[in-house]
Amino acid sequence: MKSFNYYQPTRLLFGSGRRSEAGAAAKTLADSALFVVDPVLLKVAADKVEDVQKSLSEAGVRAVTFSDVVPNPTLDAIQRGAEIAKSEGVKAVIGMGGGSAIDTAKAIAVAATHPGTAWDYLYFKKAPTSATLPIMAINTTSGTGTQTSKVSVFTNTEESCKSAMWNDNLLCRIAIIDPELMLSLPTGVTASTGFDIFTHTFESYINTGASEAVDAIALDAIARVLRSLPVAVVNGSNLSAREDLAWADTLAGQCLANVGTTLPHAAGQPISGHFPKVSHGESLAVIYPAFAEFTWRGAVGKFAKVARMFNPALSTASEEVAAQSLELEIERFLKMIGLYRRLDDFGITPADIPPILAHAMEFPDSQGNPIVPSEEDMRQIYMKSFRKA
Amino acid sequence: MKSFNYYQPTRLLFGSGRRSEAGAAAKTLADSALFVVDPVLLKVAADKVEDVQKSLSEAGVRAVTFSDVVPNPTLDAIQRGAEIAKSEGVKAVIGMGGGSAIDTAKAIAVAATHPGTAWDYLYFKKAPTSATLPIMAINTTSGTGTQTSKVSVFTNTEESCKSAMWNDNLLCRIAIIDPELMLSLPTGVTASTGFDIFTHTFESYINTGASEAVDAIALDAIARVLRSLPVAVVNGSNLSAREDLAWADTLAGQCLANVGTTLPHAAGQPISGHFPKVSHGESLAVIYPAFAEFTWRGAVGKFAKVARMFNPALSTASEEVAAQSLELEIERFLKMIGLYRRLDDFGITPADIPPILAHAMEFPDSQGNPIVPSEEDMRQIYMKSFRKA
Repeated sequence: MKSFNYYQPTRLLFGSGRRSEAGAAAKTLADSALFVVDPVLLKVAADKVEDVQKSLSEAGVRAVTFSDVVPNPTLDAIQRGAEIAKSEGVKAVIGMGGGSAIDTAKAIAVAATHPGTAWDYLYFKKAPTSATLPIMAINTTSGTGTQTSKVSVFTNTEESCKSAMWNDNLLCRIAIIDPELMLSLPTGVTASTGFDIFTHTFESYINTGASEAVDAIALDAIARVLRSLPVAVVNGSNLSAREDLAWADTLAGQCLANVGTTLPHAAGQPISGHFPKVSHGESLAVIYPAFAEFTWRGAVGKFAKVARMFNPALSTASEEVAAQSLELEIERFLKMIGLYRRLDDFGITPADIPPILAHAMEFPDSQGNPIVPSEEDMRQIYMKSFRKA
Repeated sequence: MKSFNYYQPTRLLFGSGRRSEAGAAAKTLADSALFVVDPVLLKVAADKVEDVQKSLSEAGVRAVTFSDVVPNPTLDAIQRGAEIAKSEGVKAVIGMGGGSAIDTAKAIAVAATHPGTAWDYLYFKKAPTSATLPIMAINTTSGTGTQTSKVSVFTNTEESCKSAMWNDNLLCRIAIIDPELMLSLPTGVTASTGFDIFTHTFESYINTGASEAVDAIALDAIARVLRSLPVAVVNGSNLSAREDLAWADTLAGQCLANVGTTLPHAAGQPISGHFPKVSHGESLAVIYPAFAEFTWRGAVGKFAKVARMFNPALSTASEEVAAQSLELEIERFLKMIGLYRRLDDFGITPADIPPILAHAMEFPDSQGNPIVPSEEDMRQIYMKSFRKA
């Protein structure tokens, strides 16, 4: 066995209705908190937000609500939140919402306690210290895994640059994962974020930096996505499917915290960067078939194992045939959940690829791919992601 | 899905040779530590202990060695260690050895920082606070899972009573799991402690208080025990088998920290209590067949799943047949690893059962069994654990 480290210290409270325990949980961290909440939630799920606010109030936690949260969190919004956290003297930060709200909360926890701005603490700059305010997450989507990962992604609009903090101090102290909060997610978001769970776990599983510590939880999460994502896409109010996805997403965050993604995230993120209408999940979906075709020879056993989870009939096929089949199985799955896309579908043309490719080669993720792509390999992966002529 | 909590914050450093990182790891906790080491190790593995001492010294960690560790840790020894920790003013405790050394270290971490003695902080008395010294474990056996569990078991010889502390503050901050340290374990200890890994995970898996958070890791650990314990029993110096067992044991501690054991631990522990020559693993091995016969109807699916891991040929059997077969599969496995025992083998007679039974009924563990045993049920389980006339 390879040596590995494993660390995931978040206290997890999982289960339908557990948002009502937010107050008691937060009280173990501090008597006051900035309550960072997605403004969309205040409109579409005001009652759920009130459940949390009531619980905080009843537990004697002074909560200052901050809802200046935007879909791709900006440094400006983070700094505004940090100023409020400082002037109010709160001792913790609670994020409620999807990845944007929780990543905003995480970044505020750093910005409110460190000199400079959150931008000074990107993963390749200074490390946030233990002065970081304790963070609690109440996630309302299943896809980012941010409740158990150590990342916070945000954008510096002045520099037109999206980057991330990545540090143990960004691990939430407590995460409340209440699948009831996910019942009203729209179909497209369910499909896109649910497929993202698959990518986080599959890429951690095949990563050359993977460890046996994440193999079991990655496969558990993949099995949950395969059985429950198609159900949730068809019937978003199926609580059992939402629970399965919520736990899979939590496991995926553990995979991200201890291993991480590979080629598809390097290839996909610049697509969304250059064509912001392409969601993160769509950008991955479009790349996955060509990525699988390129990569399967580098991890035959693992590709075969996952292919057989998609299609048990492959149990009688050889390892090589099963591994190679994963490309087709993923295509079928994407079609089933309505997420099969080609680059043409977004109005992207071959002429748009060079700048996207240049950005893709800057991402470190591909270094963990079982076959590390050259620039020409990556170019071909993009070209194969157009419709066949 | 049932609601559940999950919490396991130990930073795990897993891999052969990683004892050499003890100093750098300890330094993240404190500049000084009580180094609690099993005296047997000082004799049979002095070089390995020196590796750790050298690493601590090189990292600038002042380590005060304390080797007054006995097989069933006593309150007296713990209090002696606590006095030294206080007089030396150390800021952390490091335990190196099997369960006894690490449980001693854990108890010292409490006793050195709280009024009274460690006995005042048993699980049903006062709770240890966050004043507990940070604990680091370097385990040299695979079986107790104490490196990831929140328990410390010890005996008050004055009261002739064995009990335990059980608290989040007893979770190690860091655990170094170096399978090289386990290469020299004798065959009998390997079999007995290895089977204990199986019991911790299987009982957590079938526990009525179990959660889907531990199912995947419990099954991963069981698979590792089934494939690697027979190898390690035959060839103790097989590093790959030792690695598998060491990781399975670490997962088992996570299961213990979040769920816990059932009937066999309630039935087995009083056997060792009344007949101290019976090792913990032997006491469980002797009970397991009758426990399986009594319990399988209460958890048919889970018993069937594990039975099929023992014997894939059961894949074509019905759920009920597979579940009922687990009794026989466990018997076969115990015979293969040389651990199959009947009560007669220890010189125990039916006349010895009443006081053992009375103690067994005091343990809370049976309450989580899929079928909760009455006193008469438990008596019959003991009677079936003698040789058939």
